[in-house]
Amino acid sequence: MAGEHGEEVVRNKQVLARDYIDGNPKETDMYLNTGTIRLKVPEGSNSVLVKNLYLSCDPYMRGIKANIPDRLFYSFAPDSPIVGYGVAKVLDSGHPDFKEGDIVWGVTKWEEYSLITLTGSLFKIQHTDVPLSYYTGLLGMPGMTAYAGFNELCSPKKGEYVFVSSAFGAVGQLVGQFAKLMGCYVVGSAGSKEKLKNKFGFDEAFNYKEEHDLDAALKRYFPEGIDIYFESVGGKMLDAVLLNMRLHGRISVAGMISQYNLDEPEGIKNLLAVVYQRIRIEGFTVYDYYHLFPKFYDLVLPYIREEKIVYVEDTAVGLESGPAALVGIFSGQNVGKQVVLVAPE
Amino acid sequence: MAGEHGEEVVRNKQVLARDYIDGNPKETDMYLNTGTIRLKVPEGSNSVLVKNLYLSCDPYMRGIKANIPDRLFYSFAPDSPIVGYGVAKVLDSGHPDFKEGDIVWGVTKWEEYSLITLTGSLFKIQHTDVPLSYYTGLLGMPGMTAYAGFNELCSPKKGEYVFVSSAFGAVGQLVGQFAKLMGCYVVGSAGSKEKLKNKFGFDEAFNYKEEHDLDAALKRYFPEGIDIYFESVGGKMLDAVLLNMRLHGRISVAGMISQYNLDEPEGIKNLLAVVYQRIRIEGFTVYDYYHLFPKFYDLVLPYIREEKIVYVEDTAVGLESGPAALVGIFSGQNVGKQVVLVAPE
Repeated sequence: MAGEHGEEVVRNKQVLARDYIDGNPKETDMYLNTGTIRLKVPEGSNSVLVKNLYLSCDPYMRGIKANIPDRLFYSFAPDSPIVGYGVAKVLDSGHPDFKEGDIVWGVTKWEEYSLITLTGSLFKIQHTDVPLSYYTGLLGMPGMTAYAGFNELCSPKKGEYVFVSSAFGAVGQLVGQFAKLMGCYVVGSAGSKEKLKNKFGFDEAFNYKEEHDLDAALKRYFPEGIDIYFESVGGKMLDAVLLNMRLHGRISVAGMISQYNLDEPEGIKNLLAVVYQRIRIEGFTVYDYYHLFPKFYDLVLPYIREEKIVYVEDTAVGLESGPAALVGIFSGQNVGKQVVLVAPE
Repeated sequence: MAGEHGEEVVRNKQVLARDYIDGNPKETDMYLNTGTIRLKVPEGSNSVLVKNLYLSCDPYMRGIKANIPDRLFYSFAPDSPIVGYGVAKVLDSGHPDFKEGDIVWGVTKWEEYSLITLTGSLFKIQHTDVPLSYYTGLLGMPGMTAYAGFNELCSPKKGEYVFVSSAFGAVGQLVGQFAKLMGCYVVGSAGSKEKLKNKFGFDEAFNYKEEHDLDAALKRYFPEGIDIYFESVGGKMLDAVLLNMRLHGRISVAGMISQYNLDEPEGIKNLLAVVYQRIRIEGFTVYDYYHLFPKFYDLVLPYIREEKIVYVEDTAVGLESGPAALVGIFSGQNVGKQVVLVAPE
């Protein structure tokens, strides 16, 4: 095909949303379509045209009842391609920071080719000796979430007691490993405990679904109490953790996934611990820490090259498999970080 | 009178507790007695013998149901003098840091003369050109509570929006003034709003008892939201504040006075704001900040000398008036910091 000025126009498979959504996405909220795209950026534009290689399935990709004032983008908008993180190859660029052939990661769309106008959320990949798909996880937004929330906010010290909820998620498995690499004692909770100890080297793990009394479970695994809690669950888990925090404990709050879709959030009763134990609770958004990527890569790339970090991916092949892969992460179907392989490099 | 070794033994009026207490003290929880005391420290002891000048009535002087792991001392113990902060004159000392004639502030007892063995909680007063009673408040533990919780933990910036609960208390009135001196906009809530604006220079004030909807009240006074909340109330007030915090807001938690004596604390429902607004909540104990007194005095003594700080004291005269004065602070009888004048210097 050729466009009106003779540039190449190609077919562009896409995954689109039917509408805004409320809560976790279902496969029927999405549909496949094939459009066309001109493989050139418009004259005078500073946007970037990419070929998508990997797309990322992340827990934030859902509808949330609460009004989030600073939400950067919606994953789901009516009859628009799903918006999310990915790794892509630059085919054409009107932006001075990117040129043809660059590999980038950042916010793209669920389609074969994308014209990216919000180039502020696009980052050129400098280190290509590691699997490119890692930039959707360990070396991308989830990795920085773990690093910022644990290493930066919590100032961990060797020997401290660390608890990670959602420990099997893309972020939680990294927090646990960063903590072990710091010489901490680490316990994780997840919907399944099997692999946390064997695979990711957590000291202990438990399945929160099997524990009727979370406070008792935490006291079993932390007889000395908890120094650092990486929070992504909220609700009853947070309330139980508060009862077990040590003096000067730190809680970094990446999210509260148990609370987003409730009509009324659960009440947290044990906040007095904040006074008694002089606890710091800090919510954060990873976007505030993107300037730390060079520092983070200095720390983590050697660990990857020396195979000191276990990083598991669950790869769905083909854009068509994207909706099922995305839906699956909300019921824990994935084993490790869920990615969608759109095209080999 | 003369002791067995010929030293002076004198009558020593005391205020004693009948028993441990639960909740706020009542006058009947205390009784007066007159004992005797030898005005010399025991041979070989490194304790300090003082004549008490001022005693301090502080909100922490009550029974608390919750088990506070690091509670430094009990104010009330059966048939023992009430323990609390005060200003005193050293009559004799076995400790190298103190000598006869020194004026000190710190933890003493409710009696005319005290033998102080825990000298770690005693501080020599270097600056005696300001009223000595100030060392029970502005220049003592409450002053450092305000300074540590506001200036240190919250890193206030000029123009930020500051909310102070218990704004009429010894700490709250100082937080409000420190905030004004930093160029912040300050609103206080208290059981009475009259004096907060006129006397202490708050920009606005409201009486929380007159507000059926705390969220609406806060939205009225903070249409732009709150950057810094100095928390000492907890419960419904905290829940309403969370709905009104701005991005990167900071909450320093000095206490949660509404919650201590409940059988079950109120549930806090709006903690999701911690994630959405990237809020930091930090509990603290003033004892962790006592090393900052020199820095604090460098800031605050010039303000006092230049009369840029309004500091109001409510002075009860005579040790006998102590029980009523202490009981009064829990029902808001005092106007400003409640002190008991035991003896003029």
